[in-house]
Amino acid sequence: MKQVLVIHGGAGVIPQTFPPEKIAAYKQGLARALGKGFLVLKNGGSALDAAMNAILEFERDPLFNAGRGAVYTADETHEMDAAIMNGRTLDFGAVCTVRHVKHPIRLARAVMEQSPHLFLSADGAETFAREKGLEFVDNRFFDDAYRYQQLLEAKEAGAIVRDHDIEAAKPMGTVGAVALDASGNLAAATSTGGTTNKACGRVGDTPIPGAGTYADNRTCAVSCTGFGEEFMIKAAAYDVHARMIYQGLSLEQAARKVTFEHLEPGSGGLIALDRHGNFALPFNTPGMFRGVQTNDSEPRVNIWE
Amino acid sequence: MKQVLVIHGGAGVIPQTFPPEKIAAYKQGLARALGKGFLVLKNGGSALDAAMNAILEFERDPLFNAGRGAVYTADETHEMDAAIMNGRTLDFGAVCTVRHVKHPIRLARAVMEQSPHLFLSADGAETFAREKGLEFVDNRFFDDAYRYQQLLEAKEAGAIVRDHDIEAAKPMGTVGAVALDASGNLAAATSTGGTTNKACGRVGDTPIPGAGTYADNRTCAVSCTGFGEEFMIKAAAYDVHARMIYQGLSLEQAARKVTFEHLEPGSGGLIALDRHGNFALPFNTPGMFRGVQTNDSEPRVNIWE
Repeated sequence: MKQVLVIHGGAGVIPQTFPPEKIAAYKQGLARALGKGFLVLKNGGSALDAAMNAILEFERDPLFNAGRGAVYTADETHEMDAAIMNGRTLDFGAVCTVRHVKHPIRLARAVMEQSPHLFLSADGAETFAREKGLEFVDNRFFDDAYRYQQLLEAKEAGAIVRDHDIEAAKPMGTVGAVALDASGNLAAATSTGGTTNKACGRVGDTPIPGAGTYADNRTCAVSCTGFGEEFMIKAAAYDVHARMIYQGLSLEQAARKVTFEHLEPGSGGLIALDRHGNFALPFNTPGMFRGVQTNDSEPRVNIWE
Repeated sequence: MKQVLVIHGGAGVIPQTFPPEKIAAYKQGLARALGKGFLVLKNGGSALDAAMNAILEFERDPLFNAGRGAVYTADETHEMDAAIMNGRTLDFGAVCTVRHVKHPIRLARAVMEQSPHLFLSADGAETFAREKGLEFVDNRFFDDAYRYQQLLEAKEAGAIVRDHDIEAAKPMGTVGAVALDASGNLAAATSTGGTTNKACGRVGDTPIPGAGTYADNRTCAVSCTGFGEEFMIKAAAYDVHARMIYQGLSLEQAARKVTFEHLEPGSGGLIALDRHGNFALPFNTPGMFRGVQTNDSEPRVNIWE
């Protein structure tokens, strides 16, 4: 059986004039997340654990917009969303508007495995996190001078902006991972700080099953990044699944149709993986931080085409 | 052009041994919501206004689980979710975990029309509601002795229960409406208090685009009711759309496939309407409160097959 991990760290403008040391730092961050996640698969672990471990590494890295590194709301706070889905069982867990949980993806997983519900918001999500003993931090833990500068620029521009569209030289991004394990099971996971200067309480596509995150062993695992509102109304992740199951398209065909015909140009990208180990990483923006590792190839990370 | 309004007031067990005066009261409630909504269409109004007006009437009626009449959380409070979608533009607005806004559906519509975001949660949603001048009430406004009794019974049973499954003689239910106006535009709207004894912060399918609520003029408008977690992981509303657009199924075929093959038996039902005025109201539970009115037929309301 093939083992495959595919990750993304956000899509957007990401100009090629970006300083070389920054490019190197992003590529190192991608490689670390890929390595942490793939190690799970190499050791015979589950797709679910592999996807989660990749996201945990992204949440630790301030270069990426998830966990530490989450962007600022209009109120100068941080509010995070995350989701995880098991392609074998369709089990799903998500949280939105989380402010004090160090690793939102762990909370999404706890919701999936330990709650009778699938999706918890805001204070209710944090009450559940306390009951389950998850690690809490002050909201200021997520502060970052670079992110704060981005907020000031966004406010000056009067814009609620997706990660990569304010000051093109400062890419950030929702993070995601899709994995296939040796048992042939798929999983998807996504985590984000949302959009800089967003109103408090704004929920994007990340925690919406079928929008930013979806997994079904019969078809594919998908994680999206981009203009969340567009991905929500287009049910982007589920649409990849639907085109495969109802039209008989291949993973590659379905992922490309969704990215280049279903979604608006410039709206973002997605990663998709099927149980045969086929994968696709299409994006309709100039760039997308991304990486792939399989049991029979070296890890690869990329930013542009 | 045809004008059509289809509504539901929840699906579940609803035993036929239900007292006749209760049955009459529910039927009157359905007829009022239908009448308020259809009047908009009759007067040349939009599908969006028609669907919203039907929901507003449901939110006023304590017999139905939305607005006044919303069930209790495990903390003896009320938390409501609502969504609305415009099939012409794919504009969408939703809120979750709202506690003090008298009409959650008005807030969902304000999010759709007056916010750069599509989905707001909890305190952030209420901050936005204040900015827009929506009517606020104390959470105790939603209290109801009958609902409270249901909570006590649910707690005793140790269950987090969907509306119609605790004490079968006490149906409640998410409410929904789909409408077609004289311009050929579709809209969908859904509002709910969720499940009795739910954890605070629980988000169900209602505010999730593609799960509990969806509308696209090319295919259909859909509003769902039932076991929200099942409808979420199955992207139930979007799946009706997907089967129509990718498989070429009729509205009736797609709605029945989703209800009887895609969703688990006993999980709920949905209402669906296409731009030619075809409609379907399938449910896989013993009953579903529902009603239909068109420009060339009398209003009809039903509970069982």
